[in-house]
Amino acid sequence: MSSERCKVGVVAPASRMSPEVASRVSALAKRLYPERTPEIVFHPQCFESRGHFAGDDQTRARAFLDVANDESFDAVWFARGGYGTCRIVESIMPRLGPPSRRKAYVGYSDIGMLLAALYRAGFTAVAHGPVAHDILRDLGEAAVARALAWMIDRAPETLEPSIDGAKKTAAFNITVLSHLLGTPLEPDLEGHVLMLEEVGEAMYRIDRSLFHITSSANVRRVSGIMLGRCSNITPNEPDFGMNDEEIAQYWCKRAGIPWLGRADIGHDADNKIVPFGFGRASDDDT
Amino acid sequence: MSSERCKVGVVAPASRMSPEVASRVSALAKRLYPERTPEIVFHPQCFESRGHFAGDDQTRARAFLDVANDESFDAVWFARGGYGTCRIVESIMPRLGPPSRRKAYVGYSDIGMLLAALYRAGFTAVAHGPVAHDILRDLGEAAVARALAWMIDRAPETLEPSIDGAKKTAAFNITVLSHLLGTPLEPDLEGHVLMLEEVGEAMYRIDRSLFHITSSANVRRVSGIMLGRCSNITPNEPDFGMNDEEIAQYWCKRAGIPWLGRADIGHDADNKIVPFGFGRASDDDT
Repeated sequence: MSSERCKVGVVAPASRMSPEVASRVSALAKRLYPERTPEIVFHPQCFESRGHFAGDDQTRARAFLDVANDESFDAVWFARGGYGTCRIVESIMPRLGPPSRRKAYVGYSDIGMLLAALYRAGFTAVAHGPVAHDILRDLGEAAVARALAWMIDRAPETLEPSIDGAKKTAAFNITVLSHLLGTPLEPDLEGHVLMLEEVGEAMYRIDRSLFHITSSANVRRVSGIMLGRCSNITPNEPDFGMNDEEIAQYWCKRAGIPWLGRADIGHDADNKIVPFGFGRASDDDT
Repeated sequence: MSSERCKVGVVAPASRMSPEVASRVSALAKRLYPERTPEIVFHPQCFESRGHFAGDDQTRARAFLDVANDESFDAVWFARGGYGTCRIVESIMPRLGPPSRRKAYVGYSDIGMLLAALYRAGFTAVAHGPVAHDILRDLGEAAVARALAWMIDRAPETLEPSIDGAKKTAAFNITVLSHLLGTPLEPDLEGHVLMLEEVGEAMYRIDRSLFHITSSANVRRVSGIMLGRCSNITPNEPDFGMNDEEIAQYWCKRAGIPWLGRADIGHDADNKIVPFGFGRASDDDT
């Protein structure tokens, strides 16, 4: 789609998006792509509010389906994570039509619940990567530019640097993956390089989640685990005695899973793109 | 064992026990049972410290096996929860000998990891109930007295009041159950009344964990779910919009699991005993 204008629809299956995100993202897109400025449509649902969420479950599911099932959109981009995606995935999946399979999906954190289900259902352009809300971070424009470059051009420089197309990949927030194991959302991870990141959890919780993840028979069939950044770790009383990398190595060793080192992903502006599977374009599917 | 002195061994598979617990529990036991004072042996491991834990993984596993495999003990009582049990369960299970099957096991919270594995392995006197450390709570003597009365006499008045012996039961901390689903520790819960409690989590986390738990095919075969107390709930920004009971009812309804109301369990002095299974005595096993 490199010579045409890409049309991106933004929806919020979890928490509400700050209104300023829309104007800042649109301005950046115009600056980055003056000749072929992508059309970025923020679904009104992004700004709704209902308790913890960007609108109630039905509203959030309908907004996602509005964009996913609309032939005119090339990509569904997620406004932000937060919490709430798991509540709507099961109602979404049976209502996805053929146009939904021909577009890209980019997000991370809580959105992993939906990325998992889409990938499990055979969608071929699903990626762990920055959300629109990342523009509010320090240097967040770089994150948003990276998501746009992948959605518009599948630009290879946006990819997590270890990705060479030789192995299937998948990426998740640790807590989110832990909470989707054993549910109808869980994808087959056999042979994948599994990249994991975390934010705002205590060390003992990271340890407990990695016990859970690495005890899964499915996860034990991955080709290896890479650890992204674990940021804003909350205090552990007393000190846990191991850091995040030592914990990941410990559980990999116990589970017989190859430890493949650090991954360049995390809740920050440097968060690189990790396609699910081989991340090929979606034009081979109907 | 009602006319004999019961011998109870206390071990700490997770966090370290406060030293004052031993003297206070022993004094209470003497006061409650002047004629047949139970012999309560606090394994020295309870007072060890290594990072987050009451000693390193090997030390904690060995202490548990010391007591569990010793014919002279009638019960293994857990010092406290905290975190760390999941790290040692898999090394413990293959080393349990015949004497371990003839005794009672009582604890809750993080200890649920071990209760689950023991019950899965066919142990017949495993119970969710107060730990020694509960004596430090307000009115905590009542909790400790309850655990002792169950270990010494299987006193029926210690049981969660809905338990009538007609249905199998199981009880867990919500977060702990979520983190053992899909692991080798997960017991078959078909036909059980499943009682759940929580402490110190935000509403969105309770919601996410209940999504996970009620999405499990195993959990969907329970005869129903009862919700214990969810205490010290941490702030949810913005307000979640549903309380703990509404959340539990919501997920039960979505999963087709009968909602059976509230259970008298929780991280407090009122925490009643919930045997795993029919909770019969262990003398029918070898």
